[in-house]
Amino acid sequence: MAEVATPRRSRITPEREAELYEAVLDLLREVGYDALTMDAVAARTRSSKATLYRQWGGKAELVVRAIRHGKPGKLAEIDTGSLRGDLHAMVAQEDDCTMERNSALMRGVAMAIHHNPDLRQAFREQLVEPEIQEFRRLLQRAVDRGEVRADCPALDFVLHMMVGGFATRALLDDQPPTRAFLTSYLDAVVLPALGVRVP
Amino acid sequence: MAEVATPRRSRITPEREAELYEAVLDLLREVGYDALTMDAVAARTRSSKATLYRQWGGKAELVVRAIRHGKPGKLAEIDTGSLRGDLHAMVAQEDDCTMERNSALMRGVAMAIHHNPDLRQAFREQLVEPEIQEFRRLLQRAVDRGEVRADCPALDFVLHMMVGGFATRALLDDQPPTRAFLTSYLDAVVLPALGVRVP
Repeated sequence: MAEVATPRRSRITPEREAELYEAVLDLLREVGYDALTMDAVAARTRSSKATLYRQWGGKAELVVRAIRHGKPGKLAEIDTGSLRGDLHAMVAQEDDCTMERNSALMRGVAMAIHHNPDLRQAFREQLVEPEIQEFRRLLQRAVDRGEVRADCPALDFVLHMMVGGFATRALLDDQPPTRAFLTSYLDAVVLPALGVRVP
Repeated sequence: MAEVATPRRSRITPEREAELYEAVLDLLREVGYDALTMDAVAARTRSSKATLYRQWGGKAELVVRAIRHGKPGKLAEIDTGSLRGDLHAMVAQEDDCTMERNSALMRGVAMAIHHNPDLRQAFREQLVEPEIQEFRRLLQRAVDRGEVRADCPALDFVLHMMVGGFATRALLDDQPPTRAFLTSYLDAVVLPALGVRVP
């Protein structure tokens, strides 16, 4: 019986890919980036390390792909006609459980990003910069509509405020960041800093 | 020759204590809380593990003491007569090098705080809550002077804004948080959110 020829680079199905990414995200939340090994990913997903390396090149790339896959990243789809509507919609994209999981994820990679140049570069190029670009478009629309003055100094810091509120909630209040918290924070802090009146 | 009686609990000098804390902080920045071992602290400071445990009880307590020792924590000394003056003075208490080191420290403990109940409790009781109390007094003075309305919703989120700006600077801009950045951030974001006019 003739053996079926296997392609040089094996293809994995989208379902299998999603399953792998979920396992990587779980491991990141549990042990963090430094303690996450390709061995552990291989074991948990019952795949071979060779496959993982062939498909993703290395740990940094695999981790960044997994995070990208897991995030909603549908900022581009939001366009409600007002800045307040857009920011509220952005917060509403994730339920509280997802937020808590993302918060754990951020903690899992925060330190490693600063110690690992490969991860840092992949993270910036594939996650941070595209997000900043999308977010700038959302803010530019608010400026174009006359909601925010083009020279408002807070425009440069909107993501710092938002990501900062998200990231510090657990530390300062011993509570996970929730949709309700972030919505209040938008109305109490982010919109007033931009000079947008909250009804 | 009669032996000198040693006290049950050996006392260490303040200089030696400071030296120990510095070593703990260095290790935290380098490897993070989870990978920091009492063995490593003992080796780096040429002390015995028994001494460390006798003096501090355990890793969580030692780490929190070290962080407390290393922070300026002189919020109580600040009283310039205006909120803007107080917040600027708060930022000016630390030079850029110290800020960068504190930023590394926060990353080193952020994940562990969520996974380690002992650390979490010591961190909250000895670091976060006293700081929040001091900060509330500073804000209350601004309310008493009539600078901020007592019902301003941003009052509940001032530390989220500030710590958040500090914590996200590296992630979002690939640059360390500096005094100049935090000062601009105060004027662009924190004071406007509180309804305080920046000249």
